Amino acid sequence: MAATMPRADETATKAAIKALALELGEDNVLVSPEQLQEYRDPYDYKGSDEYTGSAVVTPRSVEDVQTIVRLANEFRVPLWTFSTGRNFTYGGPAPRVRGSIQVSCREMNRVLEVDDELAYAVVEPGVRFFDLYDHLRAGGYRLWPSIPDLGWGSIIGNTLDSGRGYTPYGDHPTTQCGLEVVLANGEILRTGMGGMSTSKSWHLFRESYGPNHSGLFFQSNFGIVTKMGVWLMRAPEVYVSGWATWRDEGATAAVIDTLRELMFEGVIRNNPLVGYGVPTENGRDPSAGGWMVRFAFYGRESLVEAQYQVASDALTATAGVELGRRTYRGDDERSAATMHDDKVQGGVPGLELIEMFKARNGEDAGHLDLSSIGPLSGADVAETIRFRRELYDRHGLPYSAGIVLLPRTALHISALIFDTNDEQQTRGAYDTYAEMVVELAQAGYPVYRTNIQHMDLVAEQFDWGDHAQMRLNERLKDLLDPNGILSPGKQGIWPQAMRPPRA
Amino acid sequence: MAATMPRADETATKAAIKALALELGEDNVLVSPEQLQEYRDPYDYKGSDEYTGSAVVTPRSVEDVQTIVRLANEFRVPLWTFSTGRNFTYGGPAPRVRGSIQVSCREMNRVLEVDDELAYAVVEPGVRFFDLYDHLRAGGYRLWPSIPDLGWGSIIGNTLDSGRGYTPYGDHPTTQCGLEVVLANGEILRTGMGGMSTSKSWHLFRESYGPNHSGLFFQSNFGIVTKMGVWLMRAPEVYVSGWATWRDEGATAAVIDTLRELMFEGVIRNNPLVGYGVPTENGRDPSAGGWMVRFAFYGRESLVEAQYQVASDALTATAGVELGRRTYRGDDERSAATMHDDKVQGGVPGLELIEMFKARNGEDAGHLDLSSIGPLSGADVAETIRFRRELYDRHGLPYSAGIVLLPRTALHISALIFDTNDEQQTRGAYDTYAEMVVELAQAGYPVYRTNIQHMDLVAEQFDWGDHAQMRLNERLKDLLDPNGILSPGKQGIWPQAMRPPRA
Repeated sequence: MAATMPRADETATKAAIKALALELGEDNVLVSPEQLQEYRDPYDYKGSDEYTGSAVVTPRSVEDVQTIVRLANEFRVPLWTFSTGRNFTYGGPAPRVRGSIQVSCREMNRVLEVDDELAYAVVEPGVRFFDLYDHLRAGGYRLWPSIPDLGWGSIIGNTLDSGRGYTPYGDHPTTQCGLEVVLANGEILRTGMGGMSTSKSWHLFRESYGPNHSGLFFQSNFGIVTKMGVWLMRAPEVYVSGWATWRDEGATAAVIDTLRELMFEGVIRNNPLVGYGVPTENGRDPSAGGWMVRFAFYGRESLVEAQYQVASDALTATAGVELGRRTYRGDDERSAATMHDDKVQGGVPGLELIEMFKARNGEDAGHLDLSSIGPLSGADVAETIRFRRELYDRHGLPYSAGIVLLPRTALHISALIFDTNDEQQTRGAYDTYAEMVVELAQAGYPVYRTNIQHMDLVAEQFDWGDHAQMRLNERLKDLLDPNGILSPGKQGIWPQAMRPPRA
Repeated sequence: MAATMPRADETATKAAIKALALELGEDNVLVSPEQLQEYRDPYDYKGSDEYTGSAVVTPRSVEDVQTIVRLANEFRVPLWTFSTGRNFTYGGPAPRVRGSIQVSCREMNRVLEVDDELAYAVVEPGVRFFDLYDHLRAGGYRLWPSIPDLGWGSIIGNTLDSGRGYTPYGDHPTTQCGLEVVLANGEILRTGMGGMSTSKSWHLFRESYGPNHSGLFFQSNFGIVTKMGVWLMRAPEVYVSGWATWRDEGATAAVIDTLRELMFEGVIRNNPLVGYGVPTENGRDPSAGGWMVRFAFYGRESLVEAQYQVASDALTATAGVELGRRTYRGDDERSAATMHDDKVQGGVPGLELIEMFKARNGEDAGHLDLSSIGPLSGADVAETIRFRRELYDRHGLPYSAGIVLLPRTALHISALIFDTNDEQQTRGAYDTYAEMVVELAQAGYPVYRTNIQHMDLVAEQFDWGDHAQMRLNERLKDLLDPNGILSPGKQGIWPQAMRPPRA
């Protein structure tokens, strides 16, 4: 694949970097190989320089972003924007096109607003889950953020990649409300009710008068998002971190069906996580093949206890299922939680998972997460487990699973782990992943987000109507970014000049 | 305004109608003035023919829709699509451009799929809330639809206009999942996971791989939606229809704040409705100036009772607030509900409100609903009430209010009522509405949907960034519908040939 990949024009790029340093200051334009080292794909083979940029430019304001976009158009050079670039399994901050100018939003890191009464915040793309959590604690707000497994990521970056968390506000694409976007022509758009300058409801109401533009900027290279509203959860009186464990895989389908019904009823309001062979403080010993699911309850003590009782009765109706729980009263008690499951379901960011990963697999280990979507039905999840295990067995790899239960889908995540110092092992993992993407698609399971090396392959699987979605995306790309400066190749969307001929 | 409105070209339209009759059959193309009478704006002055089409064409399949679009492009004539055309306050089935060919989706009325386990249905645009309800009852499904005030509307039409219902699934823009759309060039798009032909998750997972296109087709003239998935609610063991009443307007702010917190906590999971001077079976006599709010609880009896107790304690902490309730056990009991509040919160469609409206105001009365969005804060809602009452007082009109409480916004709806046989009174109401739209916008309250006569005016209020949203919409319109055949003027979006010069 590498041989046929587009490259940024070196002469134009050098001129653009010079102009950027003049306008934004040299301190905001990194160019030395040592400095750029941090901005490559952390899970690519260490000896490869395919996914590297020629500079990292750091805007500190919306005006800076407009300047960068203007100069990129002037010199016709590709940009690659990242928020914090911390989602390593999907490529971190690395560009698809070698020699791109990387735009780092890490210094646009202000929490612009918190509304305690209406329970939302407005953040810039550099604001990490850690930052918002700290800001809310320091300000004494009665608000919890929803966070993903690692706290170092960007709230905007995670949300726009359709990431999920584990509180009742864990459906991040739905809890965002109101974007500000710099378009490729340098104009600024505010979505929804932000389109009226007097409006009090930009971050309160998700729909627009007329078409809703927000979705255009998810997993997208149509604009650069510079502000986002995020809905927050009222801190509950009591928070119960609960779990169930079982040894017999035959019970998994029944447990899944029970959990789905508890979610439908509103008894469980967060996104439970089913785990097999993954590290956990609550589960069976993974090496013994045990299964576990974690879930949580939030609110008044009387209601939480009643909900726990209903869930317990329902889950233990399946033979062999055992329940456990830990209870946190008030914000201080929950903030002192130390175990990953309790932190992550309580909106307390951490880095436990990456520390555990490194301790197990070595400092230079990489992993590719295979994230596919299937129906939230016990029978279907059991079939998916069987199918995935067969894929892993065929490749002689150990299978473990994390399955996030969303309202109607099971988001099945399993990893391929490799040593990034070992070229053959690393390339082998990428090849295996590619085979699995195609086999999962054939079986009806779309991968809904992926790393930079597999973006075209995943896009190809979306074949309905002669690739109707991609054909529309290409028309939109040509309209909104005719010079193709914004993140070319992201999610398989290439500007006209770099577009591969369709088979 | 009428004198400067665009008109369809008569010669081209006649030729197009002839071609349509040839391809779809004469039975599917209505042209006689008597037949077209039903498809005018039901709340325009009866003596006006401004908002009338030259034909109504009835597709019976997606292929028919493609044929209609193809011929409209060939003859360069404007179409105006409606699902069932029953939202009278916003113009019903009537087109903005006189002489348009109206496309009625009433005969595309199949419930294509119901999944009882995963709790969703797939519908065509002609499926009414009545139809889905009947289908679910007849099939013995354990599923409830969410419905708006009147059951005769289209599920797709209501959802795409960002309509709301009153169960926990009342946020219709969020409970839709997976669209099929015919674009102006005749191509078909399936959104989200429907983009993969093997996918099992088209109607289960709301996001896309890459940009999410669904929002483009809300309140839009960028395509014609031919299928939609809609998430349904699991029928609960017990359903409690509750209400609170109070006489002192000074208590309203405290009640609103209490309700918001109960919603944040997940104690109340539906969209409560606050009413003043509106007909209700539970409230104080409206003429005595009483206030009421209705809300509901759903689920296991033990949890519902615990939730009701929490809500009751919280609400009655404000002096003068009294609670009431009715309890329904099982699906049959709820289906036999007769009172509007209980039906609408229980997903049982009806026509009570329009019957009451006619009984009060006469068979030929019309009403314009002024629907604006503000923060869900007691103080702000109280200020909005004061402000609206002042507007009504100034025009010598009686003020009454329905305020739908959404997660972070109060959707304030009040009506202007008039006799459509009286030209002066009717035109006066439209003029008053226009003044109120501008005054509400100046005060920070966007109107988020409106009738065909005020679409340009409301669009004008979205002024941020030199009308950045409209400028983007016009670029999208020119890209996706270069001949401007799809519903020109909808939500103020005109194709290039009809676009008014910007001030």
